[in-house]
Amino acid sequence: MDLHLDLDASAGRTLRARAEHALREAVRSGRLPPGSRLPATRALAQQLGVSRGVVVEAYAQLAAEGYLDTRRGGGTRVADHPVPAAAPAEAAPSDAAPDDDDGSAPRHDLRPSLPAVDGFPRQAWLGAITRILRTIPDQRLGYGDRNGEPELRAALAGSLARTRGVRTTPEEVIVTGGLRDSLPLLWRLLKARGAKRVGVEEPGWWRISSSVAEAGLTPVPIPTDDEGLDPSKLASLKLDAVAVTPAHQFPTGAVLSPTRRAALVAWARRRGAIILEDDYDAEFRYDRQPIGSLQGLAPDLVVYGGSCSKTLAPALRLGWLVLPSSLVAELHADDASSPAGTPPTIDQLALADLFDRGEVDRHLRRQRIRYRKRRDALLDAIAEHLPQVEVRGAAAGLFAVLLLPPDADEEAVVAQAASRGVALEPLRAAGRSGLVAGYANLPEAGAPAAVKALRQAVAQVVRPTTDVPT
Amino acid sequence: MDLHLDLDASAGRTLRARAEHALREAVRSGRLPPGSRLPATRALAQQLGVSRGVVVEAYAQLAAEGYLDTRRGGGTRVADHPVPAAAPAEAAPSDAAPDDDDGSAPRHDLRPSLPAVDGFPRQAWLGAITRILRTIPDQRLGYGDRNGEPELRAALAGSLARTRGVRTTPEEVIVTGGLRDSLPLLWRLLKARGAKRVGVEEPGWWRISSSVAEAGLTPVPIPTDDEGLDPSKLASLKLDAVAVTPAHQFPTGAVLSPTRRAALVAWARRRGAIILEDDYDAEFRYDRQPIGSLQGLAPDLVVYGGSCSKTLAPALRLGWLVLPSSLVAELHADDASSPAGTPPTIDQLALADLFDRGEVDRHLRRQRIRYRKRRDALLDAIAEHLPQVEVRGAAAGLFAVLLLPPDADEEAVVAQAASRGVALEPLRAAGRSGLVAGYANLPEAGAPAAVKALRQAVAQVVRPTTDVPT
Repeated sequence: MDLHLDLDASAGRTLRARAEHALREAVRSGRLPPGSRLPATRALAQQLGVSRGVVVEAYAQLAAEGYLDTRRGGGTRVADHPVPAAAPAEAAPSDAAPDDDDGSAPRHDLRPSLPAVDGFPRQAWLGAITRILRTIPDQRLGYGDRNGEPELRAALAGSLARTRGVRTTPEEVIVTGGLRDSLPLLWRLLKARGAKRVGVEEPGWWRISSSVAEAGLTPVPIPTDDEGLDPSKLASLKLDAVAVTPAHQFPTGAVLSPTRRAALVAWARRRGAIILEDDYDAEFRYDRQPIGSLQGLAPDLVVYGGSCSKTLAPALRLGWLVLPSSLVAELHADDASSPAGTPPTIDQLALADLFDRGEVDRHLRRQRIRYRKRRDALLDAIAEHLPQVEVRGAAAGLFAVLLLPPDADEEAVVAQAASRGVALEPLRAAGRSGLVAGYANLPEAGAPAAVKALRQAVAQVVRPTTDVPT
Repeated sequence: MDLHLDLDASAGRTLRARAEHALREAVRSGRLPPGSRLPATRALAQQLGVSRGVVVEAYAQLAAEGYLDTRRGGGTRVADHPVPAAAPAEAAPSDAAPDDDDGSAPRHDLRPSLPAVDGFPRQAWLGAITRILRTIPDQRLGYGDRNGEPELRAALAGSLARTRGVRTTPEEVIVTGGLRDSLPLLWRLLKARGAKRVGVEEPGWWRISSSVAEAGLTPVPIPTDDEGLDPSKLASLKLDAVAVTPAHQFPTGAVLSPTRRAALVAWARRRGAIILEDDYDAEFRYDRQPIGSLQGLAPDLVVYGGSCSKTLAPALRLGWLVLPSSLVAELHADDASSPAGTPPTIDQLALADLFDRGEVDRHLRRQRIRYRKRRDALLDAIAEHLPQVEVRGAAAGLFAVLLLPPDADEEAVVAQAASRGVALEPLRAAGRSGLVAGYANLPEAGAPAAVKALRQAVAQVVRPTTDVPT
């Protein structure tokens, strides 16, 4: 690939800063589109007339900022979702030591969306796939059940009843390629029955809101606070549905209080509205037993959504919706609304096999221990090295919220952290400033270094004139 | 499950005919919804006060007609898409011998949509999955590239160039869960650039037309004849795109002639229109080398769509689109149009591995031999036992068209065939009458019996007063 970069002298003091600037601009302008492959460092260095180390460092820096994706053996590519939030790093060029790892991932991966990928049960998954490939009848290698294979629907109905108090039957379970694929299906069904307005948590996962809008419905932001979404705000909004994360609000980490759970269900019943319960990481709770699902309180009003993305791995692309029986009937009546991307039959049967053998439960028990240790290590390191932040929402799930002073520029902190090899996300909640820090992929031994780097980032932004020693 | 059936004495002479009628009515009325589970034969027999054999035979008959789905170990369920075309079987109750197999599939499966499921390379697939699970870096168990993993995109770009003359780069290949998932993605992209009207082949695969309409565009039927779609019909239709199956038209089996290929591309270039080339089964051609793709003539105008559904197995849910570079840019600009149901990373890497090792080519060579034998056996049996039908479109693909006299009721023949354990499809082409008969799952030894049963079905409809000896 021939990449023409202009090392503009105004972009920085050093060749490395200029190379970073030119690369960053090429990505942000779209000249280097997402997924495109970058030249080898040696080739680009030769072309620019700089040493290879300059290019290696520039690539590593841009990878830490989220612009590039460096995969082992796969070369360096532009990330699929280059992070625009990382831009301020450019306004305040980093003086930190160059990121000298191999660039295959951020040095400290505190992204809240990932489970511990090092805990994926490869052997158990391979065993299940092997068993299925040895026993599946030829006929089932054709087109499968568009709503999911019966074995998996039965396994999910059983497991969700047992672990989450979900009240359902296999016929009401629809298998999808993850929550992201579940959403368009659900909104389409609701639109077909006349829905127009859908309440979404504010702050919340951006894809909930955008999927509502893409389906031709109106997303209506509903404020959340430390008890989660506030049902008293719903009264006059003429909503047909509301999407909520009751077990562990994303991104604040709040748990919907019992009073509010009851009030939310009562509102939906009065109004005839549907509640989407996004139960994305409820399997992980550290202080006590997980709270039962909202669905268990009102199976006729609540659509329950879940996936393997936080329990096993996002790469499996396996998720589900549990629908009230009235919506199941409407799904069957409307061929067009059948799920896109019904997962491969073999994978579905493999997951059913793992559920039936108790392997999923065993894996979750191992992962809970792992997460508790990693969470404790992160919280200990924060207490020691960053006591000025207030920690919230760490009793469940895979992330904690680190509250900053209300007027702190959280996006700038995130950018500063990225330039120090720490990947995490801003809270983006009105009236608050904070960071969303996942600990699933932060080994205990790495926690102090990650928090020290984060302390530097916070210090750069919150007290910009103070020079904090490393 | 408690199923209330009324064995109406007017529905047939025998208890079995009455049980069949009652079950068929329960499915057609929706009282038994798609996917619902039927009682065990013993339980239903007890409830109805008939012998178990009556219920077993009724289930087998309804399964042969496509209303029920009997899976090994999974019990009997209502099929996902109960075949309404099979209804006439009821108007003319079958005198054929009861279907005494285990009901897990039609006795003679001539459905044109399936590859030879008994040829799926289980061992090669398991080997690839095993290699991937042993080597995939942890980081790649997170969220993958929403447009497909780089290895698979590279493997597809190379293979399609070599075997189909497709001119592309890995960046222009988008991995999907099969053509069915590719369609909404493509129509959404075209709609975003202002498209309104899409030409579709008439007759053609119903899902092309319905997906166009579901995307909010207008499907415009374009007549096809023995040379495929006729581009001279496009001139005044104000189309923004046209979907075509040039290598082997579905369902007529016609091959788009070189003159028409050139005319179609010239029309698209004049009009600035996009052509979707649905290359669903072009890997299989028996009389000479496969014809190159239309895409190779005009990579800037043609979107090329394919999948593993006819080469490996539909159950894998793996397909792809090759986009002109202008559409790739628009795809990247529109997050909402990213594919739903990006397939699992492990499966994508396994397929790339099989391509890279030449296993896909080896498998296709084996399958071609298998298909040629099965096709020849079917054509021989037709020449011997059913010489009155004219065979078309058997030089390529996985099915042949059997033309009936123009006024023959093809739907009635299909229903009669179903009642004799032969599953195939009506042609549904204006001004013609015919059957679409797949041979992928018809072992050579079974061809004579299948064609004899089909002869009975044809005889019932085409000469209803003649008694044809078995």
